[in-house]
Amino acid sequence: MDGFAVQADATFGAGPHNPLQLRLFEHAYPVNTGRPIPAHTNAVIMIENVNFLDDEIFEIESAVTPWKNVRRVGEDFVASEMVLPGRHTISAYELGALIAAGAHEVSVVRKPHISLIPTGSELAPADKLDAAAAKQGLVPEYNTVILAGIIEQLGGVADRRPIVPDDYDALKAALLDAVRSDSDMVVINAGSSAGSEDYTAALIRDLGEVLVHGVAMMPGKPTILGIVENKPVIGNPGYPVSAVISFEVFAKPIIETMLRLPESARPTLEAVSARKIPSKLGQEEFFRVKLGNVAGRVIAAPLPRGAGSITTLTKADGILRIPAASEGIDQGSHVRVELLRKLDEIHRTLVMIGSHDLTLDVLADELIEHDVYLSTSHVGSLGGLLALKNKTAHFAASHLLDAATGEYNWSYIRRYIPDIPVRVVNGVMREQGFIVPKGNPVNIKSFEDLARPDVRFINRQAGAGTRVLLDYYLEKEGIDPDSIIGYDMEEYTHTSVAVAVLSGVADVGMGVPAAAYALGMDFVPLAVEEYDLVIPEEYLEDEKIKALLEVLRSRRYKERIQALGGYGIAKTGQEIPESAS
Amino acid sequence: MDGFAVQADATFGAGPHNPLQLRLFEHAYPVNTGRPIPAHTNAVIMIENVNFLDDEIFEIESAVTPWKNVRRVGEDFVASEMVLPGRHTISAYELGALIAAGAHEVSVVRKPHISLIPTGSELAPADKLDAAAAKQGLVPEYNTVILAGIIEQLGGVADRRPIVPDDYDALKAALLDAVRSDSDMVVINAGSSAGSEDYTAALIRDLGEVLVHGVAMMPGKPTILGIVENKPVIGNPGYPVSAVISFEVFAKPIIETMLRLPESARPTLEAVSARKIPSKLGQEEFFRVKLGNVAGRVIAAPLPRGAGSITTLTKADGILRIPAASEGIDQGSHVRVELLRKLDEIHRTLVMIGSHDLTLDVLADELIEHDVYLSTSHVGSLGGLLALKNKTAHFAASHLLDAATGEYNWSYIRRYIPDIPVRVVNGVMREQGFIVPKGNPVNIKSFEDLARPDVRFINRQAGAGTRVLLDYYLEKEGIDPDSIIGYDMEEYTHTSVAVAVLSGVADVGMGVPAAAYALGMDFVPLAVEEYDLVIPEEYLEDEKIKALLEVLRSRRYKERIQALGGYGIAKTGQEIPESAS
Repeated sequence: MDGFAVQADATFGAGPHNPLQLRLFEHAYPVNTGRPIPAHTNAVIMIENVNFLDDEIFEIESAVTPWKNVRRVGEDFVASEMVLPGRHTISAYELGALIAAGAHEVSVVRKPHISLIPTGSELAPADKLDAAAAKQGLVPEYNTVILAGIIEQLGGVADRRPIVPDDYDALKAALLDAVRSDSDMVVINAGSSAGSEDYTAALIRDLGEVLVHGVAMMPGKPTILGIVENKPVIGNPGYPVSAVISFEVFAKPIIETMLRLPESARPTLEAVSARKIPSKLGQEEFFRVKLGNVAGRVIAAPLPRGAGSITTLTKADGILRIPAASEGIDQGSHVRVELLRKLDEIHRTLVMIGSHDLTLDVLADELIEHDVYLSTSHVGSLGGLLALKNKTAHFAASHLLDAATGEYNWSYIRRYIPDIPVRVVNGVMREQGFIVPKGNPVNIKSFEDLARPDVRFINRQAGAGTRVLLDYYLEKEGIDPDSIIGYDMEEYTHTSVAVAVLSGVADVGMGVPAAAYALGMDFVPLAVEEYDLVIPEEYLEDEKIKALLEVLRSRRYKERIQALGGYGIAKTGQEIPESAS
Repeated sequence: MDGFAVQADATFGAGPHNPLQLRLFEHAYPVNTGRPIPAHTNAVIMIENVNFLDDEIFEIESAVTPWKNVRRVGEDFVASEMVLPGRHTISAYELGALIAAGAHEVSVVRKPHISLIPTGSELAPADKLDAAAAKQGLVPEYNTVILAGIIEQLGGVADRRPIVPDDYDALKAALLDAVRSDSDMVVINAGSSAGSEDYTAALIRDLGEVLVHGVAMMPGKPTILGIVENKPVIGNPGYPVSAVISFEVFAKPIIETMLRLPESARPTLEAVSARKIPSKLGQEEFFRVKLGNVAGRVIAAPLPRGAGSITTLTKADGILRIPAASEGIDQGSHVRVELLRKLDEIHRTLVMIGSHDLTLDVLADELIEHDVYLSTSHVGSLGGLLALKNKTAHFAASHLLDAATGEYNWSYIRRYIPDIPVRVVNGVMREQGFIVPKGNPVNIKSFEDLARPDVRFINRQAGAGTRVLLDYYLEKEGIDPDSIIGYDMEEYTHTSVAVAVLSGVADVGMGVPAAAYALGMDFVPLAVEEYDLVIPEEYLEDEKIKALLEVLRSRRYKERIQALGGYGIAKTGQEIPESAS
């Protein structure tokens, strides 16, 4: 304490009616907090409790007991006491404790060095991949960028090596070089399966030993575990999701063992499966899932299985493992999910299920400013309404036209979710039409053109508002769906329809102009429709829904969606009342 | 897929009984996974499904449909789609997604630069503090080391500046220099209270504006928030725990705002308070607590309040905030605790409450090898038995002598926890005696010497086994406790008794030799006693208790405790049966 160090005895007898005088540098010595007290003193009078009579003499009105306001040596640490146990990552607090304890040097575990060898003749370093190279079929190498990030996060040191083409001798030279460096482990990515240019297994066998080739998990099946010159060598699968999951299952525990840390596990959470998830018997499946807390239950909705799609990892909130002995799980089952995000973020996530629109991306970006995360699943308008029924979403997006009345959504709401009181709020007015290649080469102008024998169509799935719109017009114009080539080929979003047309799978599809414009394609307008958000009344007081409505009604949001083209904002954020009918 | 790219039409009609021949480089082109297919092909036959007849011709037994085994452009990303929303920390997975999407440059938020100015004439840089400097009363500066660690963890850049002595002009120059650097915020540690050499508030007022001086929280009360030349300047309190807690409450949200991230919160956990925790009305109190899962409930036990003791942070598993409007919480209350460790570690923690012994540190260190963490609270033997009754510990440590029978622990167990079936396992046999300064200057040889008028004793608290032992001998030898100066001064551990003697608070205390030897003091032996672990039978099958028994019975553990001196290991790990009596 700041004050005056004294011999406590010298203060005895002082009281409010009996003040005692002490002389500076005779009975009392000024001290500040944190400083040692002079020898032969054993207590400190706080500065607030003294009353100076002149420069050298002060008065006190109460005594102090011995060791009052004095911290004794060893209050915090005593010689021989353990400051920190072993096998432990030193935190910021603990750095302070080590210094306080005078431990200026501590023995630590060497950070494991992991060499990453990307291999594949189709690969180019991302920063050197120009448009010309991409045209030749070269693709950017990014698996080792992800793996390096994971290694650094675990506490290791990543050594990303140059890309090696599909050539046995080149790969052999690269592997030997890595194994003979100061690396503690080598990971070859990819070339681990049985293709004609997959040399990894043969190479490890020639230079050392293959312990495992192929594991009963998906993604990640073609993993190789081996030893070369006494160092672990892993042949990691090439699809990005397989590469990550296999690495986390096999390489991560090795790195943690090298760090002498216990194997870390992600926090888990109990969730309810939003739908039936079939899984192949005999292999452990790793599903990427989206999570959201709806009506007090955390809902897990699986993302597409494809191991080639890195976005199924970046969009995922968690990983759901289905064991090898299971054939899958039923809708509504309770499952344990490994969290990829903070629990806190899951609880601040607004879950939308329903029709896809490109404005949802802008909505998500704006909601973040309100600390709200938007999770969207694109299953079509009807699927969205059913999600409200199953309480797996906070709101749905829908553009279901009632052909009889020309009204949107309300008749479907009455039919499919009559027991759920909802509000309908306009998201945007949008054009619908034909998405065709630049210049409209097959000259699509009307629905009749879809039935031409030289035209291949790409459809949306049943229950999608766009499909309803198409069927409405086909019926109105007396066109038999069976006469349309590709009527039974389905995609799930506007952009995937546009991509199908762009890549030549089809000549025309139906969708919104923003999807066509984004890919430099042409658009033939047909109708303007209402894209609405359907919000159960029970969530209206939820802060996340309030933030949603605030964003929808903000000028900034409207300006951003206008800039996309093909959208009308006159009703955006307005409630659409149920018609009197 | 690895295989051959074809026009799907060319395969139509192929079947098991009707194999079809295709010629290489005429109908079919070799491709590998990840590579683009040649123009005018639209499907891939997997390599496993072809049968080569010669070098150029192969046979297939099934047709492929268009786009079979082909990934279309845009499966993962389409132009205009959002790859990542804003206000987001880019993860390893997301780095990959950005590269895959061709986003080689992204705008990021600048890392906030935080200048840390340590101030105090008693401070020296830890690496330059030698024994001579320490003798002069200099202490190592480590608050800014901790704060820098926290800043780096948050994603900022810490700029630790040289120590400034308690001098207004020197501090002014240092502050102006920091404010005029590229720093976004300046933290002065300490000098924030009202002591004679606490210049921070006056300085900020002279150069800018003091917004807040003093906050209703403990620790952390003398915090200053100010602005100098448009930059936030924080006067942080000097006690290490106050420095950390105040920084986390005030500086952390500013740094997160600069990073455009939402304010992060530690995960929390519901726990049951192990005892009554009084708190001062009118200020928010931050208690450091130890946590453990005992009998299905997470128990929170508060550590000492002292803000000067950095170990109360490093030993803590969580922080319990008691709001300003509360006068505290009762034993058994449900409380929400912010986690400082992973939940997983809490569940792998074995909780010991009871008598202190220096071998517990060795036990903790050995248990880590079994992935078990040991949490110990030193409340004396009797307190340990009562903790078993309250189900706040997995086991107790006790050395309570029954004067009538000479037996340890069992008679106390029968009296205090008759309803809890337990096993007693010997921890160690240990000497007890007098802890005296080197050379035994006041010449303590027997209990009679404690009653001498020139001898000041330091006692252990009521319920401690050592206190029971003392009282046993005093009664046996007919010595009146009231005749012993200091009989009513209590410490809670062997080491704190030793420290009290070493620092001159007392001339003698009672304890184990390891505590005396660790501090280079002398020891006068009196008796050998049994230091036992008392384990409720209901936990015997717990993996953590099994690990405990395995460690106790290991040769390595016994060798380590023998090396401490003053311990007997003949019974260590053995069960001590209840006597027939």
